[in-house]
Amino acid sequence: MKRGKFITFEGCEGVGKSTQIALLRQYFQDKGITALFLREPGGSKISEEIRSLILSTDSVGMTKECEALLYSASRAQLIGQVVRPALERGEIVVCDRFTDSTFAYQGVARGLGEDYVDALNTLACGDVMPDLTIFLDLEPRLGFARKGGADKDDRIEQEDRSFHDAVYRGYKIACKRYSDRIVAIDAGGDKEQVHDAIIRTLQQRDIVD
Amino acid sequence: MKRGKFITFEGCEGVGKSTQIALLRQYFQDKGITALFLREPGGSKISEEIRSLILSTDSVGMTKECEALLYSASRAQLIGQVVRPALERGEIVVCDRFTDSTFAYQGVARGLGEDYVDALNTLACGDVMPDLTIFLDLEPRLGFARKGGADKDDRIEQEDRSFHDAVYRGYKIACKRYSDRIVAIDAGGDKEQVHDAIIRTLQQRDIVD
Repeated sequence: MKRGKFITFEGCEGVGKSTQIALLRQYFQDKGITALFLREPGGSKISEEIRSLILSTDSVGMTKECEALLYSASRAQLIGQVVRPALERGEIVVCDRFTDSTFAYQGVARGLGEDYVDALNTLACGDVMPDLTIFLDLEPRLGFARKGGADKDDRIEQEDRSFHDAVYRGYKIACKRYSDRIVAIDAGGDKEQVHDAIIRTLQQRDIVD
Repeated sequence: MKRGKFITFEGCEGVGKSTQIALLRQYFQDKGITALFLREPGGSKISEEIRSLILSTDSVGMTKECEALLYSASRAQLIGQVVRPALERGEIVVCDRFTDSTFAYQGVARGLGEDYVDALNTLACGDVMPDLTIFLDLEPRLGFARKGGADKDDRIEQEDRSFHDAVYRGYKIACKRYSDRIVAIDAGGDKEQVHDAIIRTLQQRDIVD
């Protein structure tokens, strides 16, 4: 069976993921390439409900295991209901955050451990793993400066600076651990430069011509 | 550190779990023994919200992996927030359903597999596993007859007869796989007989005098 390509975007808060994903969407549209754009956690009705529960400020006191398992539940639903069928139709699927977010946020920053998250990701994803992950590489202090501070309605963004530094460190570990899959792109330049670097990476990986 | 005892109740729909748990609660009260009674999924605010999501009839189309991960998320929260602290205070904790429900319902009846659920239970529970699990043993056809049919507002109870037969088969597999921990008690007798058998088991395991 023909299989599409699965691309994920990762990075700390404020690195420009949404901007770059919008530019990529436009690029595919101009080229007439069918691509499905999703965000995690979310992307299906059940996953959106799980997203609300995770991010709600009412959920203070949530254990790190519960949080990681909820992200994984949302991911499993998104894969079964949306990602796998689209890949089987031969489409390109682009997802804003995926397993490496769990690795960096829950595995490293929350301290669940790298092997814990690896085991959990295997249970949630089975064989549906990204063909390519773009890590938009920018230190948290630069990301928050760009973004104008954290979102006060979001429990994760409210964490302090040391948490976000640990997330960044987690991403750096993931880049080494999954070096075949993850490509780090310097996100400090202007948005057109970053976009061009992303397209070159897609060309090198034979995802686009 | 002194550690309490953790007892779980398992069984198919209509086997009399609630009745037996109420009788056990009365027994502990009469003896002046402090015990905490919980139900799964649920037992804490976050866990109750996860429970609502799982059992909602709006959640038709939920993948089996998502369902199992949600049960595990709820369990991890209950353990971290309620069960572990109570056991550390030396209390008895009694829980209506726990990991063996995931084993029987998701692992066997939904077909996720025994090893999948074992791995998931390890991620959710860490070292907090029951000291004793009482399996109230009654075939589903007898349970539903006793109960007067399935609850129409509950997505799990709405499953057909073959599903509930598979759950029962799953419990029988769990009884063999975890024979040190699970004690099967014939739930076909009258409620006093079953209660007496439960108390004898607790005495044999040195949980009560």
